[in-house]
Amino acid sequence: MAKIAILGFGTVGSGVLEVCRKNAASIARRAGEPVEVKYILDVRDFSASPDAALFVKDLDVILADPEVRAVVETIGGTKFAYPYVRRCLESGRSVCTSNKEMVATYGAELLALAKAHGCAFLFEASVGGGTPIITPMHQCMAANHISRIEGIVNGTTNFMLTKMKRDGMRFDEALKLAQQLGYAETKDPGDDVDGRDACRKIAILGSLACGHHIYPDNVPARGIRELTPLDVRAAESRDCVVKLIAWYREEAAGSLAAGVEPMLVPEHNQLAGVDDVFNAILVKGDMLGDVVFYGKGAGKLPTASAVVADVIDALKEGAAIHDSLFWQPAEKLDHMLPDNAAYTWHLRVRGAAYGLRLPLEPVRSEGGETVYRADNATPAQIDALAAELQARGCQLLLAMKQLAE
Amino acid sequence: MAKIAILGFGTVGSGVLEVCRKNAASIARRAGEPVEVKYILDVRDFSASPDAALFVKDLDVILADPEVRAVVETIGGTKFAYPYVRRCLESGRSVCTSNKEMVATYGAELLALAKAHGCAFLFEASVGGGTPIITPMHQCMAANHISRIEGIVNGTTNFMLTKMKRDGMRFDEALKLAQQLGYAETKDPGDDVDGRDACRKIAILGSLACGHHIYPDNVPARGIRELTPLDVRAAESRDCVVKLIAWYREEAAGSLAAGVEPMLVPEHNQLAGVDDVFNAILVKGDMLGDVVFYGKGAGKLPTASAVVADVIDALKEGAAIHDSLFWQPAEKLDHMLPDNAAYTWHLRVRGAAYGLRLPLEPVRSEGGETVYRADNATPAQIDALAAELQARGCQLLLAMKQLAE
Repeated sequence: MAKIAILGFGTVGSGVLEVCRKNAASIARRAGEPVEVKYILDVRDFSASPDAALFVKDLDVILADPEVRAVVETIGGTKFAYPYVRRCLESGRSVCTSNKEMVATYGAELLALAKAHGCAFLFEASVGGGTPIITPMHQCMAANHISRIEGIVNGTTNFMLTKMKRDGMRFDEALKLAQQLGYAETKDPGDDVDGRDACRKIAILGSLACGHHIYPDNVPARGIRELTPLDVRAAESRDCVVKLIAWYREEAAGSLAAGVEPMLVPEHNQLAGVDDVFNAILVKGDMLGDVVFYGKGAGKLPTASAVVADVIDALKEGAAIHDSLFWQPAEKLDHMLPDNAAYTWHLRVRGAAYGLRLPLEPVRSEGGETVYRADNATPAQIDALAAELQARGCQLLLAMKQLAE
Repeated sequence: MAKIAILGFGTVGSGVLEVCRKNAASIARRAGEPVEVKYILDVRDFSASPDAALFVKDLDVILADPEVRAVVETIGGTKFAYPYVRRCLESGRSVCTSNKEMVATYGAELLALAKAHGCAFLFEASVGGGTPIITPMHQCMAANHISRIEGIVNGTTNFMLTKMKRDGMRFDEALKLAQQLGYAETKDPGDDVDGRDACRKIAILGSLACGHHIYPDNVPARGIRELTPLDVRAAESRDCVVKLIAWYREEAAGSLAAGVEPMLVPEHNQLAGVDDVFNAILVKGDMLGDVVFYGKGAGKLPTASAVVADVIDALKEGAAIHDSLFWQPAEKLDHMLPDNAAYTWHLRVRGAAYGLRLPLEPVRSEGGETVYRADNATPAQIDALAAELQARGCQLLLAMKQLAE
């Protein structure tokens, strides 16, 4: 019988307890022994819960119990989670987490700490919310050099973009619906709609791919607030859909680029048909070519089941397989990762744009705004174009790249 | 430095050598040490090869060398591969294989043998040809009960079906093209086009899902020979595409059903957009919901990279993680797994079908044949219909299920 503890009894934490109980038999078969939740750490009062006896408020109780072999961290954020996870790892307990903010910020450090103490730090659920991605990248693609990742990794914004496309909703209408359905935070939906959540996830995947820490702070990220129905319709008339894409790319020279931004995705691309709250991540291996992992990107039980899968792995004796789930620490850069590639662009302009250095092809006009297409231009050229337009009294309202084939 | 041996220097075997050399640095990073191919076993003459020194013709040479820690089996078939793999496992060497026929036929026995000798028997490359599926199912979905699998697992037939749909080719034209391009065997393409290859793969995935051995001989399999352009067009007019689907299902009562057959796939289904030689496998977990794994289903380097990933896992000391990659032996059934579910059907009939017990709705007619749609009927009811039609001088030429939502 393996005993574990859960830190934080929110949505995912309570899901972990539920999964452990519901699928106890198949979990025992996989883990080689039954798995039981012995403690739940939460500051709130659960004395009325049928599981009241499991709750503690002091991490020391858990750390002092030699029966506890692995710890699940589902507190979220970094303020409490980070020092708690450090202490668990220092005590030799493996930690399994769904906390993308912590992994993206302290991943290299926590992985090294786990290694130093002979335990594992696992985070399959931090990206894809249950859809397998970390383990397949780490194990199944171990013989590949990974040069490109492109993903729809935020279910909330993907749901909103699906509504904007299918039902012609504006951003604010789609957000309101997402909030009503519980997909978006009511108080501050910024983590989702401004791309910060996706930014943490691509920082994690990029770190895993290149082998050293990529900080979210160095990944340019923007969300979907600026998108209008005109953008959606103009994309459609080019046989594309607008998706919030989190991407990572190793350039030929070995330098890295990454970003989170709404992009035009051609309809025949595997990511174009990923709708509603689903996630999909495309990973390019030099031997394997493109593979895509698709599934529900969030939700209590999907995410919890991924955490429990990590627990099963962590509990296995001598699970040296995790030694290579590792990336090196790196200094945070004092600048954003630059993107010097050339793209096809979607440019929404207010005012008359003609006679410019960069050839623009009009796609669609509505209410004094026009979407143009520009080919083979770098972000720097688009910046120059914006200045050129401004000098003529026009305004570049939105510049959106098209996902390269 | 870890030394390995390759048994069989065909397409995949030579790919394994190539991958080991090309990505030596990243493989060493993942394995924790460099990986070197020390021996290649092949009956053919490779004395003119630059790697002539590696070739041996006698398995005993490999088994007698204590430096060899893992063995790659890429001979194919079972005649030589099976006894060789047994001997390798009995000697305590982990075996990594892409040989689906051997895994489907002897998987339970070889997994038990590996366990008994403290080594691993790994076969990620046996399904999906490089696309991760075995490891994600085994590890990432370990906290799920898997009740359904539906996959496009044969790239050759998927390429042919794509050509039949896009270019209106007949079966024989598509086969000829596939043979010209090297996708289909020239001598006997039956393994692919008659569904035997897909049958082995679904037997492997089903065994992994239910935990006991499912024999390919017990899985009803048919291929795509009977399909005509009328079938493809009739499917289109119902907003469906025809795909060769390998499926596994656990019924509510716990009984199993599985099969390989061409099916109508509604266009909004994730599998409908999987074209050319690509594979995609949908797996339903009770906690996770549907996940889909998509990638190139075959090819020298993709398949070899999956074998090498298994080698890396196998080489890690105390990789107890594989202990649960296991299914129990089971007797071969003396009957096929039955399918008692109700489906929507595509029925191609010669002659006039009216006044039948089962209501049929005509979809499309050409050259004396008509495709009808029937709803909510079991395979047994369709068998009865075929008899009823025959009694009236008509003939049921093709009955095809529609993939349920």
